[in-house]
Amino acid sequence: MAHIKLPEGIPGIRSLAMYRPETGQYIFELVQILLRGESSISEAERELIAAYVSSRNNCNYCMKSHAAAARFLFGDKQHWVNEVLTDIDQSTVPQKLKALLHIAGKVQILGKEVKEEDIMRARSVGANDREIHDTVLIAASFSMFNRYADGLASWTPTDPGHYEETGRRLSQKGYVFPQPVN
Amino acid sequence: MAHIKLPEGIPGIRSLAMYRPETGQYIFELVQILLRGESSISEAERELIAAYVSSRNNCNYCMKSHAAAARFLFGDKQHWVNEVLTDIDQSTVPQKLKALLHIAGKVQILGKEVKEEDIMRARSVGANDREIHDTVLIAASFSMFNRYADGLASWTPTDPGHYEETGRRLSQKGYVFPQPVN
Repeated sequence: MAHIKLPEGIPGIRSLAMYRPETGQYIFELVQILLRGESSISEAERELIAAYVSSRNNCNYCMKSHAAAARFLFGDKQHWVNEVLTDIDQSTVPQKLKALLHIAGKVQILGKEVKEEDIMRARSVGANDREIHDTVLIAASFSMFNRYADGLASWTPTDPGHYEETGRRLSQKGYVFPQPVN
Repeated sequence: MAHIKLPEGIPGIRSLAMYRPETGQYIFELVQILLRGESSISEAERELIAAYVSSRNNCNYCMKSHAAAARFLFGDKQHWVNEVLTDIDQSTVPQKLKALLHIAGKVQILGKEVKEEDIMRARSVGANDREIHDTVLIAASFSMFNRYADGLASWTPTDPGHYEETGRRLSQKGYVFPQPVN
C-alpha cells in the first residue's frame, strides 16, 4: 500500500504526477525531452540507460517499464536489454553504448564517482560532450524518479502484460502527462 | 575541470542549464515550484531539506548554496542549519521537521528505505500526506541535482562570499533560469 493516498489503479510515478500535477507536469516534460528529444543517442539506447539505472536502484516498476520500452525500440537487437540487465561487461552492445552505460552506473552510485578515466574511455570509443551530458542527466533523473516512485511506495503491478502494454505505449507515444481518466 | 566544455565562470547546475537549456528550463521550473510553490512546509524548511540531502550526497556546491538560502530564510533560527548538517538527532528543530528530514535521509539512500514506521513517526508529530509527498520529492530531486552537478564535475566555487551572495539571491528571487549574461 502506498505511503499516502494516491489515485487507485494507477501505477508508479503516473499516480504521483496525478496526485500533484503542478510538479508532475515538469517531470513529464523533462523525461519526454530526455528520452525522446533530439539526440545522437537513440531512443532505444536512452531507454536502456533508464532501465539500467532503475535496475541498479532496485526500482522494479521503472526498470520493467523502461526495459519493455527499450525492447520495443531495439527490435531485432532487443536481446541487448536482458544482456545489460544481467551482466553489462559480458553484453554484446556496441562499445560506445557500453562506455555510456558505465558512466550511468557511476552516476547511480554518486556524481563524484564519475572519474576522468570514465570520460576518456567513452571519448576513445566516439562519445562526444553532448552524449556524455545526456547520459549523466538521464542517470541522475532516474536516480530521482526511482526514489520518488519507491519512496512513496506507489503501486508496482505484477502482471507482465502490464509492462508489455506500457513498453508499447512509451515506444509509440512517448511521455504524455497522464489524464485523470485513461 | 569539468568533464565537458561548459560556460566559463558559471558554477554548478547553472552552467549545465545554460549548456542545455531545453532540459535546464524544466529543471528550474521544477525546483522553483518545489522550493517556492505553495506548501505548508516553509521555504526555509524546504531549503534545509535540500541542503541536508546534498550534504549526505557529498555535493558541496548544492549543500553550501541551499544551506546559505536556508540561513537567510530562517532568520533568527538560522542556527538550525548547522545543527542539522552536523548532527540531526541532536538538533533543536521542531519534531515535525526532524521527522521529515529523517524521511529525506532515507530517500537519499534509496526509495525502498522509507518504511511505514518512518511515515507513522512523521504523522504522529503532525505531518500530512502533502508534506510527506513534498519531502520525498524534494529529497528525490536533489538526488538528481547533486548527481548532475558532480557527475559532470561542474565548477564548485571555494569563496565563502559566493555562497552568501547565492543564498541572498535564492532567498529573495527564487530559482530564475540563468541568462547567458548575468
